[in-house]
Order: sequence, then structure tokens, then C-alpha cells
Amino acid sequence: MSFSLPAHAVLKGPNFIREVFERGAGIPGFISFGIGNPAPEAIPVKDIQAAFDAVVHDKPMELLQYGPMMGDDHLREQTLQRLLTKRHMPKEGQALLLSIGAGQDLGLVPRTVCQAGDEVYMDAYTFTSAINAVRNVGAVPVSIAMDQDGMIPEDLEKAAQSGKGKYIYLIPNFQNPTGITMSLERRQAIYEIASEYDLFIYEDDPYGEIRFTADEVPTFKSFDKENRVLYAGSYSKTLSAGLRVGFLYGPAEVIGAIQVLKNNCDGQMPLVTQRVVSHLLDTIDYDKQIAKVARVYQEKWKVMKDTYDQYGSSKVTFTNPTGGMFVWMTMPDGVDSKAFFEDCMQHKVGIVPGAAFATDGSLTSQSFRLSYTFPDLESIRTGMEVVAKLTRAYC
Amino acid sequence: MSFSLPAHAVLKGPNFIREVFERGAGIPGFISFGIGNPAPEAIPVKDIQAAFDAVVHDKPMELLQYGPMMGDDHLREQTLQRLLTKRHMPKEGQALLLSIGAGQDLGLVPRTVCQAGDEVYMDAYTFTSAINAVRNVGAVPVSIAMDQDGMIPEDLEKAAQSGKGKYIYLIPNFQNPTGITMSLERRQAIYEIASEYDLFIYEDDPYGEIRFTADEVPTFKSFDKENRVLYAGSYSKTLSAGLRVGFLYGPAEVIGAIQVLKNNCDGQMPLVTQRVVSHLLDTIDYDKQIAKVARVYQEKWKVMKDTYDQYGSSKVTFTNPTGGMFVWMTMPDGVDSKAFFEDCMQHKVGIVPGAAFATDGSLTSQSFRLSYTFPDLESIRTGMEVVAKLTRAYC
Repeated sequence: MSFSLPAHAVLKGPNFIREVFERGAGIPGFISFGIGNPAPEAIPVKDIQAAFDAVVHDKPMELLQYGPMMGDDHLREQTLQRLLTKRHMPKEGQALLLSIGAGQDLGLVPRTVCQAGDEVYMDAYTFTSAINAVRNVGAVPVSIAMDQDGMIPEDLEKAAQSGKGKYIYLIPNFQNPTGITMSLERRQAIYEIASEYDLFIYEDDPYGEIRFTADEVPTFKSFDKENRVLYAGSYSKTLSAGLRVGFLYGPAEVIGAIQVLKNNCDGQMPLVTQRVVSHLLDTIDYDKQIAKVARVYQEKWKVMKDTYDQYGSSKVTFTNPTGGMFVWMTMPDGVDSKAFFEDCMQHKVGIVPGAAFATDGSLTSQSFRLSYTFPDLESIRTGMEVVAKLTRAYC
Repeated sequence: MSFSLPAHAVLKGPNFIREVFERGAGIPGFISFGIGNPAPEAIPVKDIQAAFDAVVHDKPMELLQYGPMMGDDHLREQTLQRLLTKRHMPKEGQALLLSIGAGQDLGLVPRTVCQAGDEVYMDAYTFTSAINAVRNVGAVPVSIAMDQDGMIPEDLEKAAQSGKGKYIYLIPNFQNPTGITMSLERRQAIYEIASEYDLFIYEDDPYGEIRFTADEVPTFKSFDKENRVLYAGSYSKTLSAGLRVGFLYGPAEVIGAIQVLKNNCDGQMPLVTQRVVSHLLDTIDYDKQIAKVARVYQEKWKVMKDTYDQYGSSKVTFTNPTGGMFVWMTMPDGVDSKAFFEDCMQHKVGIVPGAAFATDGSLTSQSFRLSYTFPDLESIRTGMEVVAKLTRAYC
């Protein structure tokens, strides 16, 4: 038959992240700073296996039939309690839904709240899937300039004056791809603009608890007096990405509408993985587990940075992540960043071109995202020495 | 803030299925023919537990990290082989994706292939979520009349002349809610119309292998010379609904586009449940398992029918399912079907008003869907005696 798929289904830019992955796969000795996988040594494998053993042999029939549409009650309650007590979020007027990772929320939110033509305000560089999910519903991702504190409020306000805005998408903590954490003042300024133009704030916070320092910047949700913040969180980075358990917390009316959409169009999520997470929260010291993840990531970031400082050009700038998984390196203007990227690949080190994350779809960028979480320390040293020495050849 | 959710997110009809469930929940002795849950006694619980034990302790790290976007390779191959050898489907030009049950496909297909305003042709009564998923993308579900053989080709052709059609949604085997199986002649006639108006056919076949008789009507996909059929299947009804593993098989270009959308907007699906299904397919006699499910359902349907025949009014008509989970009873015109429904509920028996499945959104129907799979035989006898005796009071 003659295929006539609509533009939203076939128009897609190059997938740089996948390209790095695919070109590196199978090459012996290839070191990838490309993928955002958690550190394997920080996954509590034995605890998770024990949780499966317990959950699968306790009330199996509940796991094997259709389950509750809202997900596992106990996990919902555990998640809610943590948001209230540890993250100081408001309770009244809120609801929580469990999702197949926070990744599923990326699609659910625009599908529910947007109509074609609505604008969504996003960091100039942000999580690729968040951009694509907005495009897919015919809404328009609008690129807002960033500085070292994240999204620039003045630029946001200029865009919001169109009156077409629906929400602001933000990863305020250890942003993907830049590693930037937005300051409290900046958060407050953006909240005020959201208030003035009646926008939702979609606060995506999958790494928010993986902090290298004691300082915690309050979440948008924690000071959400006007109930306009949808807060997405995840157990993927703190326990296991493969379990696919995340959540969305926000205005009860909106969460209710999203839940209906999810029930109708996405089917249910498996109960067994939810119960495993729930069992872990009941049986392990979750705060200690998070601290362990943070310690592992912090050490890896330090090795990456120290190695760069030893061998790299001082003309290249780096962000300074205080948590999370990513750092953003930027080459000086005039450097041929495409050639630099190819040279890194030739030397068997994968980094991700910044264009992969460009909200405006631009195909060039002087920046690269590096993830320091997955490779072991020795690979980080080896790979970063290669990258660093190459910067000296180019800058 | 002032919520302004778009119409697609808030305009929804009454949820009759949920209403029956919620009104019945917690009432001692309530017998539900409302929910479409598989028979618990046909779920191979011990085999599934053993599969979890094996899978969770073998290569756990693979399960706990992000997995392959396309799902588990071995399960994809097992599924494909079964479609080719047991269901005689074509291989060339096709691709297969794994999904969170076949339920996830209901959303993925219209999100990928439809634009707002496109028409989707559906049985006058069909699976509620399929209707809602079409509405959610701003496409238009168009109700096509049915008779005892399913969708009526002449009525379909009339509708297709609008030129706005995108696909025909069908459950050709043991249709939900009617239990009707479409004849081969009817399938061929509908395929010809799809060909003439260049429409996809979305063949939803979650119960297709659960047959009470040896006769199998060929699937649309098996004679899909023009590569226009998207075939959805599931392990939910044959192994376990709670594992949430289904699949979609069809034109490689379309499946490719759906896979990209799924990767972007829905996140990944857990690998552990896919591996459990895969392990089961490798270790149990799956055909024997399907035969067991069919035997259990057939016996339950026979008890339901025999009980009705003993106590019920002959003015009520029933379809005669030859497989699957559902039967459709229709009251004569003039009978107050709402009062009848309430009377059943008062007598602690749940049945689902046909309006729950009305593609045109109409709120009244003389028909009801009854599922015979979940209650035990004694409950079926007791509940059906109540329903049957009530029909005599109303007809």
C-alpha cells in the first residue's frame, strides 16, 4: 500500500546518541561517555534479587492478573511520604501516579495538556525525548537561552508573551545534558513568570537526590503555592533503570486526566516491578543507597575532571556538576567541533555532540555531553586522557 | 492556577465497566461478569514463579540496566517464529515490536498513523480503550454497523467514501464485546475495501488462539498481500495479564515509525517480564497451555449458557462465542434495559451495559457484555440463574 504517515511520525532529526552507541558497539576497547546508564557497581543487585524472590512467591496471583490501574497502593504511599517528608512538598490538592519510569511521563504530559500549536518552553539544550514528545503531539518546543544558572527568565518572559504557552519543561537539578543546577533565585523568578502567564511547570527530577554536596536547592514543587507544578521522579537512577518505575506528582485534576489517558491508551504497567521497588524501600536503607550512588558518581566525576585538567586545553570550558550524571564541555568558537568529534571516535572514545539536545533542532554545536557514570575508573582515566589530549590539538 | 485542559483530555463518557467494578467491590457475594480477567486456574503460576527464579538469577545486570529499545531479542524471535509457522503470516517487509501488553499498541497506532480529523472505522460496538485512544489524538471513530458475522462491508464502504479514512480497527476473533468471529468471506470483502480506499487494517487478536473448536479462520495478516495489516497479539490471555507483554507485527516502515515514537515518548519496557515470557516459551508446552485455557473457558461458557437456557426468557438473544472471553446478550426492543441492569446489580450480579462499547458514544443499548472467564463454575451458575430469572420478569 502507499504509506502516508503524518509528518510527526516520520520527520525526525539525526539520533546522535544512538549513532555514538552504534558506532562504538563491538569495537574492542571502545570507551563510551555517551550513554547515560547508571554505574553497575551502585546497583544493589543482591537486594533486588532477594526482593524478586520475596515478591514473586508472595501472593503471586495478584501479580499475574490485571492489577490496579493506579499502580501498587503501598508504593504510591511510600513515594508520597518521601515527597512530603524528605522533599517538603505540599500535600493538599495533589495526586500521584506511578509510571513506566519517568520516561513515560514525558509522553503523557504533552498528550494530556497540549493541543496542536501550543508552545512548550524548554532549555536551549535539554533531554532529547522531552523535545520529541512535545513535537509528536503537534505542539511547538520553544528554545529558551541558558547561562550558568540555567534557563534565563528574561528570555522566557519574552517567549511567553506570545500567549500560546502551555508549560515550561525544566530539569532544575544536574540538568541533562549540561549538569547545571538552577539557583533558587532563578527558580523563583521562573515561577513568577509561570504565574503571570498561567503556565504549568514540568519539573523533571530523576537525579535530584544524587547530590555530591549537602546543599539542596528547594524543588519548584516544594514552593508551589499556586499548584502549577508537575513533578516527575524516578527509581531508575537510585535503584535500577531496568525496573522501569517512575512517578508524577502534581495537581489532582491534571494527574487525574493523565491517569485516565494512561488507562485508556497505554495499558497497565506490570505490578511485579512496582512491588519489587516497594519491597526494597521497606527492607533496605534507601537514603544510604542513594548516598552510595552519589559517592560512586562523585568519585568518577573527580577522576574525569582531574584527568582533563592534567592533559587538556584550558580553552575548553566545563560545567561543574554537583550531582547527577552529566557534564557539558564547550569548545571555543572557531574550533571544528565535528572534526574533533570524529577524531575522538577514531580514537575509540564516544562523546555526544550537543546538537543531540538542541531544542531548536540546530545541527551544530560547540558543546558535547559526557556521562561519567557507566565506565569504570580506569576507563574514565584512559578515555579522558584521549579526549583531553585531542583538545590540545584542536584549540 | 486556572486549568485549561484541552477537550480530548477531559471529555470522556461514563465508564460503565469501572462503575460495575466499583459498585460491586466489597459487596459480599457479589458475582461479576463484568471484568475481562483471565481464569486464575488457567494461569501457570508455578511455571511463572520458576521462570522468575531462573531469569532474575541469570545475568541480573542485563535486567537492571536500560535494555534494548526493541525489547528482548530472543522473545522477538520466538514470537516471530510462532506467527510465521503457526499462524502462516508473511515475513517479507514485516517487522515486530514488543509492547506493554497489546493495550499499549492501542495508543501507539493512532498516535503514529493518524492526524487530527482522520477517520478510523470501527465496529458499532468495540473495545472501549481502542475508541478512546482514537479520540485522544483528535481522530474520529466512525461507527460501522455489524451483523452476526461482524462488520458489514457495505456500511464500511459507504463510510470510506469520505476519503478521510486512515485505518479499520477490528477484533476478528471472538470480538470484544460481542464474542462474534468474522467469517472468511467477510474478512476478504473488508480487505478489498481497505485496498480500494488505501486503509490500514489494525487486527487486534488477543484471544485468537483461545478457540473452543478446531476451526480457525485465517487472520487478515495471513492473506495480507498488500502489506496493510498491523497485527496485535498478546501473552496476557494465554500466560498472564500481569506480565504485560504484547506485540505488534506489520509493515516494517510503520512498525519502525511506531518504535521511534515509543522510544521517544513512552520510555522502555521492563526486560524482566519479557525474559520471563521468553523463558516460559522455551520451557513449557505453550500449545498445551493455550489448549488448557481454551478448555477452561469453554466449560465456563457452557455452564453459563446451560444455566441461562434453563431459567431465562427465550426472547433474549445471545451470540455464540466459539472462543475468547465474552458473550453479548440483547434484550428485545421496548424492555427497560437500564432498570434490568440495576435489578441485576441489586441482586449482586454485575454485567456491563453495551453502551460502554458504543463507538458512536451513544448512552443506551439493549445489549450487555458478559464475561465468563473469571468467576468459578458455581458462581457462574448462581449468577446466571439470577440474570436469567430476571429476564423472565422483564421480557
